[in-house]
Amino acid sequence: MHIHFLTLFPEMFPGILQSSIMKKAQDQGAVRFSVTDFREYTENKHKKVDDYPYGGGAGMVLQPQPLFDAVDAVTKTEKKRRVILMCPQGERFTQAKAEELSQEEELVFICGHYEGYDERIREHLVTDELSLGDFVLTGGELAAMTIADSVVRLLPDAIGKQESHEDDSFSTGLLEYPHYTRPADFRGFRVPDVLLSGNHAKIAEWRQYESLKRTYKRRPDLLKTYPLTKEDCEMLKQIKKELEEKQ
Amino acid sequence: MHIHFLTLFPEMFPGILQSSIMKKAQDQGAVRFSVTDFREYTENKHKKVDDYPYGGGAGMVLQPQPLFDAVDAVTKTEKKRRVILMCPQGERFTQAKAEELSQEEELVFICGHYEGYDERIREHLVTDELSLGDFVLTGGELAAMTIADSVVRLLPDAIGKQESHEDDSFSTGLLEYPHYTRPADFRGFRVPDVLLSGNHAKIAEWRQYESLKRTYKRRPDLLKTYPLTKEDCEMLKQIKKELEEKQ
Repeated sequence: MHIHFLTLFPEMFPGILQSSIMKKAQDQGAVRFSVTDFREYTENKHKKVDDYPYGGGAGMVLQPQPLFDAVDAVTKTEKKRRVILMCPQGERFTQAKAEELSQEEELVFICGHYEGYDERIREHLVTDELSLGDFVLTGGELAAMTIADSVVRLLPDAIGKQESHEDDSFSTGLLEYPHYTRPADFRGFRVPDVLLSGNHAKIAEWRQYESLKRTYKRRPDLLKTYPLTKEDCEMLKQIKKELEEKQ
Repeated sequence: MHIHFLTLFPEMFPGILQSSIMKKAQDQGAVRFSVTDFREYTENKHKKVDDYPYGGGAGMVLQPQPLFDAVDAVTKTEKKRRVILMCPQGERFTQAKAEELSQEEELVFICGHYEGYDERIREHLVTDELSLGDFVLTGGELAAMTIADSVVRLLPDAIGKQESHEDDSFSTGLLEYPHYTRPADFRGFRVPDVLLSGNHAKIAEWRQYESLKRTYKRRPDLLKTYPLTKEDCEMLKQIKKELEEKQ
């Protein structure tokens, strides 16, 4: 996969792209990155990339020419590329979208900063408008790198087994049960006895119970699609009772 | 405000913290950042910060000692600090949460990587568990910087007027209308005539119509709380008709 970032702040990228999974995935040949300052593509002699909005109003608007030309220059084919605009009006990014993007050969992220985009960029250049959620960021760079991270870690060979631990949260359909490691007593806070018991059946039962409890408390929506067994339903009854008694 | 990042990958931060708004806000004295490798705080002679989970299972778990000690070392008071854990099970981050956090004096972000957290970290050290959304990241670093960006830009004096353009998306309660700038004709794609007309009443009407249309198409949920005028309701009727005819 080839991932391109178009930005006016190229210095934001190397620290991220040269660390951790992003670096490893490049070393393994799973992904290549390019970071392009699209100001280099402007035909304006003052190197401007924005201008005042037609019809008046506050703020500046990014012009179509530098971005169209930069996208054409960095990508290989016009047909296969996905050109992604990071913006608060976009579709909310999810794990399903990460899976979808991980199948592509070439992704282009357009990272604006402060300014609006000329509508022709959205209509005729961009294939996807994505948003991380209902909050405002200074620019698209962090959002684009966040999405790139979630996509790159899905590429075959990008990460090892040990590193895939955090998946648990979504892959079982329930939130993770609590984890504990040494010491058994830290500042008077103790690890639950059952985990020290060596009784594997009891441990499995405790974990399922805690997993259901956390999901019930924090993300009850997930229980609607989770295939509950008879035992799970019994546990949920107990959990509801436990939580009512606490109140 | 003082923002601390605890991480095992400190090299991911400078490129972001020294650019754009983050740099400006520091130069203005609105915020200070510290990035701490919490491995420096481990009492383990091999500099380990994780260990196997009690009760068995795949993956490693971050131990409480290095994180408790690192948080105590970098923060000034125990009472006022907000200690934020980035994790997929956390509360979804929103603009309302950004506003809330922007009122604090001291924020600590704990950025884990691959691994699970000992539950005692969640229970006795952390004050907030936050998530960007339903997708999996390699680590908490990008999520923490994303949240920091959205908080820092709300600090008084952190950003100038010109840069606040993108707010429009949320501050009016509707999605933004389309923007256009020069040239009027780009590769045959033309700016709508009304914007070139100089008729300000018509332009304002066109923008409100387009803003309502985009909101209706992409985020109809926002219309439930937006105070619609009689004119807006008339426009929405027209919009529904327009969209039906297109199908």
